[in-house]
Amino acid sequence: MYKARNNRIIPKVVIERLPRYYRYFQILEGKVDKISSQKLGEIMGSSASQVRLDLSYFGEFGLQGYGYNVKKLKEELANILDIHKERRFIIVGVGNIGRALTRYDAFEGAGFKLMGLFDIKEELIGQSINNVKIYHVSEMGNFIKENKIDIGIISVPRDAANEVAKTMIKSGIKGILNFAPTELDVPEDFPIENIHIIDKALALSFLIKAKEKTK
Amino acid sequence: MYKARNNRIIPKVVIERLPRYYRYFQILEGKVDKISSQKLGEIMGSSASQVRLDLSYFGEFGLQGYGYNVKKLKEELANILDIHKERRFIIVGVGNIGRALTRYDAFEGAGFKLMGLFDIKEELIGQSINNVKIYHVSEMGNFIKENKIDIGIISVPRDAANEVAKTMIKSGIKGILNFAPTELDVPEDFPIENIHIIDKALALSFLIKAKEKTK
Repeated sequence: MYKARNNRIIPKVVIERLPRYYRYFQILEGKVDKISSQKLGEIMGSSASQVRLDLSYFGEFGLQGYGYNVKKLKEELANILDIHKERRFIIVGVGNIGRALTRYDAFEGAGFKLMGLFDIKEELIGQSINNVKIYHVSEMGNFIKENKIDIGIISVPRDAANEVAKTMIKSGIKGILNFAPTELDVPEDFPIENIHIIDKALALSFLIKAKEKTK
Repeated sequence: MYKARNNRIIPKVVIERLPRYYRYFQILEGKVDKISSQKLGEIMGSSASQVRLDLSYFGEFGLQGYGYNVKKLKEELANILDIHKERRFIIVGVGNIGRALTRYDAFEGAGFKLMGLFDIKEELIGQSINNVKIYHVSEMGNFIKENKIDIGIISVPRDAANEVAKTMIKSGIKGILNFAPTELDVPEDFPIENIHIIDKALALSFLIKAKEKTK
């Protein structure tokens, strides 16, 4: 349960939309000074009232008849999302997805700093990818504590994911970004986000089928 | 807008949960014969009534006092998600994410067949990854038509994404799975799913910050 300043509970869907708002304000900055909730709704694929409601959780940003100040709201969103704070993360599971994430530049641009990689395959231990070293997963707990790791990315096979999550949480990690195709068993209110690639592909399959049926 | 048999509109969030239900029934199959909406709700991190409501869009599956027949409902979900139908896809953008997706076995297991890779880098053209050939993106339109491609995965940089999507749609692709960090400008009701990795990481950052504040 996440509460806004005025003690209203912020729905998870609103939280998930915040980075998109931020992304748009990054693009808009320097191009326009202000933007209406109407126009912003169009860009976001929603309505003006949805935009006003979403942003109202975090303060009074818009001015009636003027719209939103792009530069100012971008900074506000950066603060809300803590963009300026470095978040240290590790990646556990150096398979295809783990490797791709190691080289994913966008993390650094958004304030995330990759501190270490972990795997169980003996032949990988001690190697480096992009100057980040691969350690054995048995060293993960201590590494999290010693390096004050904020976020753990899990990209191990499904059956290993819960064990990794358990060790992460026990070692004081603050949040988990899970790519393993399973729901992790974490304490209530523990910060977690899932990226389930196959689920998205299957949902897309459903949308395609549904559309074909209406033809 | 996606409608159920009884003409009720199926919310997008319900569609996005379907693959998760399917995943669980895969795990449950062979272990248990039946499961209650209560228990299923616990696994899914929701409530019994949410489970009953979600599944009610697609038919009458549960029996009061008995629960859901695991084997039967798994098959029903497979049909709803069209798991048994081969979906042919291409990946456009053979960078880190594109490469990882090329080797992502789970696609094949879920009925998705990778037919071709596309990029603009001359040095990549003609190479193969996992026996799948890389073509120049200028050949994409014809390839989609000739090979009856269903789904296009977009993993190009942000600025190139909309151009790729436009060509895909013009060439008759049925759905897009977008990894580029931008909203694509597609016709209303065109099947699309987005996987925005950085957005998820930033939402996680917000959840961590919000939790720290309540301490």
